[in-house]
This record gives sequence, C-alpha cells and structure tokens, in this order.
Amino acid sequence: MNSVIAPKGFLFSTAEAAIKKPGRKDLALIYSEKEAVVSGMFTMNNIKAAPVKLDMKRIKSGKGQAIIVNSGNANACTGGQGMKDALEMTALTAKTLGLKQGDVYVCSTGVIGTPMPMERIQPKITELAGNLGKAGIDDVAAAIMTTDTFQKAISKKIKINGTAVTISAVCKGAGMICPNMATMLCFIMTDANIDRKALDTALKNAANKSFNRITIDGDMSTNDTVLIMANGLACNKPIKTNSKDFEIFAKALSGMTYELSKMIVTDGEGATKLIEIEVKNAKNDNDAEKAAFAVANSMLVKTAIYGNDANWGRIMAALGYSGISIKEEKTDIFLNGLKMVSKGMGTGKDKEANERLKSKEVKIVVALGLGKGAAKVLTCDLTEDYVKINAEYRT
Amino acid sequence: MNSVIAPKGFLFSTAEAAIKKPGRKDLALIYSEKEAVVSGMFTMNNIKAAPVKLDMKRIKSGKGQAIIVNSGNANACTGGQGMKDALEMTALTAKTLGLKQGDVYVCSTGVIGTPMPMERIQPKITELAGNLGKAGIDDVAAAIMTTDTFQKAISKKIKINGTAVTISAVCKGAGMICPNMATMLCFIMTDANIDRKALDTALKNAANKSFNRITIDGDMSTNDTVLIMANGLACNKPIKTNSKDFEIFAKALSGMTYELSKMIVTDGEGATKLIEIEVKNAKNDNDAEKAAFAVANSMLVKTAIYGNDANWGRIMAALGYSGISIKEEKTDIFLNGLKMVSKGMGTGKDKEANERLKSKEVKIVVALGLGKGAAKVLTCDLTEDYVKINAEYRT
Repeated sequence: MNSVIAPKGFLFSTAEAAIKKPGRKDLALIYSEKEAVVSGMFTMNNIKAAPVKLDMKRIKSGKGQAIIVNSGNANACTGGQGMKDALEMTALTAKTLGLKQGDVYVCSTGVIGTPMPMERIQPKITELAGNLGKAGIDDVAAAIMTTDTFQKAISKKIKINGTAVTISAVCKGAGMICPNMATMLCFIMTDANIDRKALDTALKNAANKSFNRITIDGDMSTNDTVLIMANGLACNKPIKTNSKDFEIFAKALSGMTYELSKMIVTDGEGATKLIEIEVKNAKNDNDAEKAAFAVANSMLVKTAIYGNDANWGRIMAALGYSGISIKEEKTDIFLNGLKMVSKGMGTGKDKEANERLKSKEVKIVVALGLGKGAAKVLTCDLTEDYVKINAEYRT
Repeated sequence: MNSVIAPKGFLFSTAEAAIKKPGRKDLALIYSEKEAVVSGMFTMNNIKAAPVKLDMKRIKSGKGQAIIVNSGNANACTGGQGMKDALEMTALTAKTLGLKQGDVYVCSTGVIGTPMPMERIQPKITELAGNLGKAGIDDVAAAIMTTDTFQKAISKKIKINGTAVTISAVCKGAGMICPNMATMLCFIMTDANIDRKALDTALKNAANKSFNRITIDGDMSTNDTVLIMANGLACNKPIKTNSKDFEIFAKALSGMTYELSKMIVTDGEGATKLIEIEVKNAKNDNDAEKAAFAVANSMLVKTAIYGNDANWGRIMAALGYSGISIKEEKTDIFLNGLKMVSKGMGTGKDKEANERLKSKEVKIVVALGLGKGAAKVLTCDLTEDYVKINAEYRT
C-alpha cells in the first residue's frame, strides 16, 4: 500500500468514533485544498440511505471540497433523524474547515436501520480537521472497510500534454455487491484540470464497464456511491471531451476502476476465487450482459466453481432462464480455455476441467453463435464462509 | 407415508437401473388401467431437457396412460441422442404395456449433460411392466428423489356430487427450485371424471399459487414438469368448469399443491427453516409478487434468517432493488408477528425478534401502504450445507 500516492492538494485524516464498536478507525476525512470539480454515481436502489439522498442533491453543483465518511453504520432506513444526522455531519465538517456546507459530501456504510451515534461522531469531526495530513490514502481505505479483508487503494501517474497528473482511488466492497454498485464506496481523487462534462463522461464510462459489471450476491445496497474530485492543481491544459487528452485520462480511469472491481470481487465475502464471465456472439450487447449476469448470479454455478466441479450444465441452465435469445445447438462453453460444450453438448472433458478449475482465477467464456453482442462480468465463488459471515454479521 | 392411497386404476412399479450409481431404485413407472385425460406444465427455461420437449408435444393430445420416470440423469443438453433416448424410453414402455407410444410420457431428473445409460435402462423397463402393482405411491416418491432428504407424497379423498374421488400426488424438489418450477417433478393422479379444459384450468390455478411461488436458490431447471392424469374410474358425474363440483376439485388440488410446495421448500438443500414472505398493500399484484420474490431470493435475507438475525435492513434493501413502486415512509415489516419496521423505520425490537426467529417457520409480512396488491412466496434459509451439497453434487 506504500506505493499509493496522493494527487497534489489532497489531505486525509482518520479517527476512531466507535460507531459500531471500539478498537478501530471508522471515520475518515478527504479534503482538497482547492475547491474541486466533482462527479458521482449512486445506488439505483429505490431505498436510498440519507447520505446518498443528500449527496445526490449536492452533486448538482458539480463542485466540492471535502468528503466525510464512516463505516459501521449505513444511516439507511433511519427516517428524518437520519437526514438530520447526515446534514449535521456535513455542517460540522464545513464549519471546522471553513467551507461552504454544499461543498461537503457524506458517505456511510455498515448496518442498516440503526440511528447514527452522533454523540460519538461529533467530537471526532473537529479532531479529523485538526489531523488533516497525518493520514495517507491507505489509512482512509482501512477506515471505510466493513467485512472487507484487505484495503483497496491504487494510484496512477499519467501525462496530459506533457504535464504529470495523478489519479488515486480508494474503495470498499465485500458483500451486497451487484450491478449498479451495491455496498460499495469509491472515492477517486485527481489533481487533473478537467471540466465537469469530461469528468462526468469519463466516470460513467469507467463505472459502466467495471463497478456496474460486478456481482457478489446479487443484492444491491442502499448506500453505493462513487465520487470523483478533480482539483486542477496539476495545472495541466484543461481536459475536454473528444480530445486525445480526454482519451488518456478516461483510459487510465477505466483501468483503475476495473482493477478496483477485481479487488472488490476477489474480496467478496468468503470468496476463494475470482470468476470472469464473458458472453460473446450474443444477439446484442444487452443479451450478452443479461446472460453474463444470470451465470454470475447463479448460486449453483458459484458453488460448483467453489467445489472445482466443471458442472457446465448449471451454466447452460442459467443461460436458458436468463431470458435471452439462445439456441442450444449453437452454444459453446469454455472453462479456463477448455472447450466443455460444443454446439450444446458436452465434450467429455470434465475431469481435465475439474483440474483446471483449481486455479484462483476462473474464466468462463460462452459463445452463443448468434451475433456480435458481448459483455464481461466479474463475480466470485459461493462458499460456506459467505453463509457464516452473513448469518453472523450483526451478532 | 402409509396413509397415501392410490386412486382407482393406477398401478406403480420401481426398479434399480443404477443410472447414476447402484444401490437404490431410480426408475419408476406410473400406469393407468384406462387411458386418462392429461394436463401438464413445463419449465419456462429456454434450454429444455429432451423429455420435456417430447412431453410438450404429446400433451397436445390431452391423453395419456403411462409415465416412465428416472432420477440420476436429467437427459438435458444431450443433443439428438438425448431425444432418441427419451423416445426409446417411451417406445419400450408402450411396447411392453401394449399402449400407443403417444400415450406414454417420460421425465428425467439429475445431472445435466451426461448421456443416458440406456443399456442399463432398457432391460429394466420390461421388468417395470411385469412388476406393476408391486410398488406403492411412496415407492415412486422414493425413486424420483435426487438430493431430497424425504419422500413427498400425499393423497386426498373428496366427494363429487356424492361420489368418492381420490387425488394422489408425488413430487421431488430440493435444489434449483425457482418460480416456474425448477428441478421439480410432480405427478398427480386422480380417478375423477373431468374434462380436459377443467383439468387444465384447475392445474394452472393450483400451480400458479404454489409451485410457481416457491424459490430455493433462484435457479430454474431444464426439466421441471407437472403432469396430472385423470382416468375417470371414480365414475362421478363429469366435472366441468364453472360448476360447484369444479370448485371442490380445484380447491382440493390447490390445497395439495400448496402442501407439496411447502414440503419442497422445507426440504430445500441444506435448509433449516421454511420462510413465507407475504407482500400486501402493494400497488398491484404484480408488484407484490416481484417484491416477494426479491426478498425470497436475497442471499443476505436468507443467511440472516438462518442466523436468527432480524436484520430487516436487508429486507428493505431487497424491496428497494426489486424495481416496484415503494415509499420508504409507508413501509411496515413484520417478522413472525412482531412489527420490526413502522413507516420505514426500525421499532427497536431486534432482540425480541431474534428470539422469535428461532422457530422452524418464519413469516415475513411486508405492508407497502400503496394499494391492494398481494402475493405470497415460499422459500427457505441459506446455510453452509447448501454450499456443501452443491459444491460436491457430482463428486
């Protein structure tokens, strides 16, 4: 994690507010010395946590300077009090830092339906402001973890028209990860000078092929948020859409969100394997995506992969009920490069495939023989530990 | 199981064909002495097993006299050979029994993608015909089991216009059970005198509120089949739709399929609890059904119930992503009679609810406060044993 560097002008601090229980840092502050251009993406769940509702309003300004974030409590299903608490978290942060309240965003992750322990959070916000600069990006990554087993942070340096630009990101994932960004928080910081429209486009493109293409348990959380802040302190020539500079920036961002997505899935609750499902030659991209998600969300497929069992029949069944156009007699399936199904029928290579499945990364390729549609989805296997973790999460 | 009686004119036999492995009866024959009126419902999966494709053609006649069924092999994804094998199973049965081939149905359940061991099945079909009458309904129930842990068979006597009529049914379930009747086989036999249209209507009504409202793992199999045979040997006055007799028959049938559905869910792979989810006051019935299935299929809800954890936040999250009309501030949730959520917020009764969840049957009621839509769905909890069973199914 030491290789994770911060872009110019971003400072961090963390604190222990004992939100769920004492013994760890569970509150973090991300601060930009200069007001930044901000874009965001939020959960598609109709039930949204208070901080998500608040951030969705504030992001309309396209500006921001700080993010206050906690783990241990999602501040979801907490009614009017939940919104008051979210507002107070931003108000306190703004006051202590001397910012406009609208420039502060708030994110929460953890248990749903429990009031925020504001009496423990309030005094820590002043402490956070005083300690800015004493924590690194990796400390923020650690503070936002819930059932995650490792910190997720990366950074990348790129050149924009000769000027060095840094992009850094932290995220948390683990359970409840589904399309449209389940219990996932991701904060991306860059010193790039980029306009709002370009930042929006780059973020949307990146998220749609990464965070929105991962699934752990098919559940979608009330709190998912991706925020990107660009403070311009690299002083590069402004990045605009439809330019070479934009392509460089967007490509770097996409690569980073894909890496983070892999980290999230690898760290799926109880997961032992990363599974990539590629569906190609579908009638269209939409069909390919639907089919890939059906396979990725199939508990039977996920348990079979866990058991090193090349049970391709379960993949066929999932393709069949996904609702897409499919012709059994045109369908091929490959497991880690081995052709298991040819024109809808088994090739008899199950034993060899069982051996190949023992690797930590499993690639399922489905060729439907119907057109040019394609999509990739990332998921993980389903294990006894997933059940254990989620049966005991609150106890 | 001794209380399960057979309707007039139905005979049964079972045999050991060592289809997957030796040591148990895995082949069964159901025979009606008189050609019967037949109705059926089949998997909605676009990938259908050969026997399903064959039966779907034959059922158009509305007639039938025998069902040959095996466990251990699903005869799915077996290409042209699979269809030849299904045809041969019915041809041999028809020949031995002296029936028209079109009057014989075939059903298979078990592993997908493995050719049928016809060399072991063929000789047993003659044996089955010779042994008709030597087995009971419970023996058929045992022969069709896969990962089921108990036999599922029930019977009921009713009076139609003063005449005694018997309805008996066997089924198998366990994994891969989802709406639209996943790896589920159900055979219903009755000596009722009923016309095809009335039988169709009664079966559809019954299945739509029972087999199509259960889910174990959200997967849907390639083989699900429900067949009902009515041979008329009770010699009651013919049952026609829109009559009092029809209502009596339909009600009895619905009650039976609901009982069988409960048995299937109770016997879900690794399940320790039966969970009934009732969504009411939805905008409409369709919304209620979608919401109930979203809750029922949520791995996070299912693991929480397993862990006796009244984690209603996961129920809210599932309602939120189900895609239905929902207003957080109008939503109430009850767990085993205890109000956990009132107008979108927790009532603080989690500890008491955790205690109540220790019962073997858990009832989740969601009141959306939006209209008159309602639906009930049955499911089971998700346990480490589900993972174990499905990671090791073929090994």
